[in-house]
Amino acid sequence: MSNLRPTGEATPRTDPLVPGADISSADIRAGRLRRAPENFLTADDIRQVGKGRRDFLRSSFLAAAAATGAAALGGRAAIAATTVAGDGDPNILTPTPWGSSLGLPVAANPYGQPSKHERALVRRQSPGLTQVPAASVSFAPLQGLFGIITPSGLHFERHHQGWQDIDPTRHRLMVNGARPDFVKTPKVYTMDDIMRLPPVSRMHFIECGANTGMEWGNVAVPTVQYTHGMLSCSEFTGVPLRTLLEDCGADLKAAKFVLAEGGDGSSMTRTIPIELVLSGEVMVAYGQNGEMLRPENGYPLRLVVPGVQGVSWAKWLRRIEVGDRPYATKDEAVHYIDLMPDGQHRQYTSIQECKSVITSPSGGQTLLDKGYFTISGLAWSGRGAVKRVDVSTDGGMNWSQATLQTPVLSKCLTRFTLAWNWDGRPALLQSRATDETGFVQPAYGQLRAVRGTRSIYHNNAIQTWQVAESGDVNNVQIL
Amino acid sequence: MSNLRPTGEATPRTDPLVPGADISSADIRAGRLRRAPENFLTADDIRQVGKGRRDFLRSSFLAAAAATGAAALGGRAAIAATTVAGDGDPNILTPTPWGSSLGLPVAANPYGQPSKHERALVRRQSPGLTQVPAASVSFAPLQGLFGIITPSGLHFERHHQGWQDIDPTRHRLMVNGARPDFVKTPKVYTMDDIMRLPPVSRMHFIECGANTGMEWGNVAVPTVQYTHGMLSCSEFTGVPLRTLLEDCGADLKAAKFVLAEGGDGSSMTRTIPIELVLSGEVMVAYGQNGEMLRPENGYPLRLVVPGVQGVSWAKWLRRIEVGDRPYATKDEAVHYIDLMPDGQHRQYTSIQECKSVITSPSGGQTLLDKGYFTISGLAWSGRGAVKRVDVSTDGGMNWSQATLQTPVLSKCLTRFTLAWNWDGRPALLQSRATDETGFVQPAYGQLRAVRGTRSIYHNNAIQTWQVAESGDVNNVQIL
Repeated sequence: MSNLRPTGEATPRTDPLVPGADISSADIRAGRLRRAPENFLTADDIRQVGKGRRDFLRSSFLAAAAATGAAALGGRAAIAATTVAGDGDPNILTPTPWGSSLGLPVAANPYGQPSKHERALVRRQSPGLTQVPAASVSFAPLQGLFGIITPSGLHFERHHQGWQDIDPTRHRLMVNGARPDFVKTPKVYTMDDIMRLPPVSRMHFIECGANTGMEWGNVAVPTVQYTHGMLSCSEFTGVPLRTLLEDCGADLKAAKFVLAEGGDGSSMTRTIPIELVLSGEVMVAYGQNGEMLRPENGYPLRLVVPGVQGVSWAKWLRRIEVGDRPYATKDEAVHYIDLMPDGQHRQYTSIQECKSVITSPSGGQTLLDKGYFTISGLAWSGRGAVKRVDVSTDGGMNWSQATLQTPVLSKCLTRFTLAWNWDGRPALLQSRATDETGFVQPAYGQLRAVRGTRSIYHNNAIQTWQVAESGDVNNVQIL
Repeated sequence: MSNLRPTGEATPRTDPLVPGADISSADIRAGRLRRAPENFLTADDIRQVGKGRRDFLRSSFLAAAAATGAAALGGRAAIAATTVAGDGDPNILTPTPWGSSLGLPVAANPYGQPSKHERALVRRQSPGLTQVPAASVSFAPLQGLFGIITPSGLHFERHHQGWQDIDPTRHRLMVNGARPDFVKTPKVYTMDDIMRLPPVSRMHFIECGANTGMEWGNVAVPTVQYTHGMLSCSEFTGVPLRTLLEDCGADLKAAKFVLAEGGDGSSMTRTIPIELVLSGEVMVAYGQNGEMLRPENGYPLRLVVPGVQGVSWAKWLRRIEVGDRPYATKDEAVHYIDLMPDGQHRQYTSIQECKSVITSPSGGQTLLDKGYFTISGLAWSGRGAVKRVDVSTDGGMNWSQATLQTPVLSKCLTRFTLAWNWDGRPALLQSRATDETGFVQPAYGQLRAVRGTRSIYHNNAIQTWQVAESGDVNNVQIL
């Protein structure tokens, strides 16, 4: 395994565990996995905690299996069907406090909140990643999420000048032309104007162009929250941008690009090819997962540019300008570019190519015993729908086709799963997605042959999680 | 219009407006509609408020249209493209405080929350509906939601003994048989056991069997939140119940039904036909919209029974018993039953038949001017996918086929829209859904001919919203 490079800890321990968090269902969620929200614990810390918990679970598992004679599950490992402590008779459930008391009234939370037992499952920033926390990143906890919808409270954040909770009655969107003849009637829209127009709702992923950026070089971060957590997926609702351009009398033959400008202090501006607008896919969106956008995600209005990196989804959208050439703004001329092997910078590579990642088992978790596991992960492509996902447990020597959760939607996350019996020996878990254009997610060696090693953006290489004999799962790279 | 019965206020004014709520984007969301979160205002109150706001908007609309010469939108009514107050030049956006200051840092809310401007959009109980608020209902604000996903914080609630935030490490699920030979190896599962099994994720609606129940008789409630708000839709994740039954060695030939038992004080118990379980659709679910279930929705475990009324989706699920006959528990023998015209009670009518409702414009809103509106609503069927939705603006004389948002999924909400130019004259808005079995949603007259007038449950009749010349929208019934 000379092509295997173990990874160090990328982030120092600066973030204490969530106060009061004891053992959460995130532990449980992983099945026989030990969860990894202790993202900033040292390796030694983790080993200590893991050992105690592993011994505890292993012994209770064996005791339970002996007591109940748990049967094999159709070729899969036996389920440890445990009895409630203290009774010993599987037909008797111990009375519970919640089963014998009056609970809380309806609308105790008029806007509901997660269980207090889930308080460890939060988005987290990576301290030290940027100079100012207002111009930084918080990552979605992919290791603890199910299905394809990202709860809006856990949607990743990437701000360049912090976020604000803008009064929607004071928000405006201007549509104008770079030249007077590009837009016959420039207009300034209120939210009222926009929200009365015919709406569309569609499910799409959004991924920051810098997602998995640390992995280009020798830095490898410990968990999937930090490797791939600048990724989320929502049902967005809004108005096709094309509708607004038509309303303003834009010259859609002369137009080649539009400029999208955000309303925060960073005035984030991005050039978007007119073809994406004409297709009807680009949306001026106000809705996310059934309700209004969250303030951190651009409330009350953001651009949705399906398949394109997140930076183009201008938040707090305040202006669209119709033009005939790329604008070369600071965020496309010197940021969000690819440093190629020959030293040249490549610009305007905005489409997020086909990519996937296993979210469980993943880095920082521990397999507590041999036997059945569900390998589960996410796949997506900025070019359309995911066609298939293959999974390897031996570092890419052999592949098995994973099951895709339906519906499989275009430019949307797709959940895949594969049954796996761990035999207790070291393993190397990988997923490889193929999209409907036939594009196959590359290995690191393939990607680097073309793109070199000094990039930050647009890393869609195959991720490898190494399972050690101890059950510990670590982030490694296979070329 | 002798078949038109105006409706009174069903609920007294006892719920003050949300403190501090001034004008929210819910106002804006409705376009030229006045929103109706003032659900408990008297009709006089509403008229006062509506008049002031309508005059204000109408004058600003006309001024703006004159100033900008707003063009017609492809045959639709003109959009009022307003300039920012104080400048007068559509090419200049007034500087904003949020565009010239540093915002809040990432992870300021590690678990994000809606904008403070959205605080009026909450689930609401109907005071006096039940004796105890712990055994009551809170309704989802359908009038303010987009697309098909219900944000988990706005999911409707129906509790029989209140809700609790159960410690998942102490929760257990027992599977046993009514007779020893029905289940070879009865087991008690921990959450750990269940969450390691192969998961599935699917999007489904859940509707309380009593939804729209007040509408059977002469009581008509003022808004869609109260007429249809015991309805929500989520992506659920869990394990097929069939997997657990097989693991316990259940005799799936002898079994005809299972009993599902909730873990709260009410010990809600429901009989479920084994066919639904064998199909693989019935799910022991822990995930909702990507994260763990919310406590009010059964955290950490509930049954998901697609297409079946919500009462069967046992929350805080603690026991499944395999049997060969219906259990006739209190909640199926004397509740959730249909009082037929001959005085007999019909039991076990659990499937939620094909139904739809227009959520905007809807009761309590006001159309502030003539012109373009998007008629938008939701359709669903417990028998499968929605095939088509027709919309009438003249009380059922003429129908137009609405556009269905894709993907259209089985036993899931489907969003429909239809463009409408209101000519300012009284109108009667209706939607009529047809599902893939060919079932057509009935008019009240058709439903009553079969079911009488004294039921509470399983009302899937066509809803009518009356638009008065004043623009006020009211709940009426057309037989």
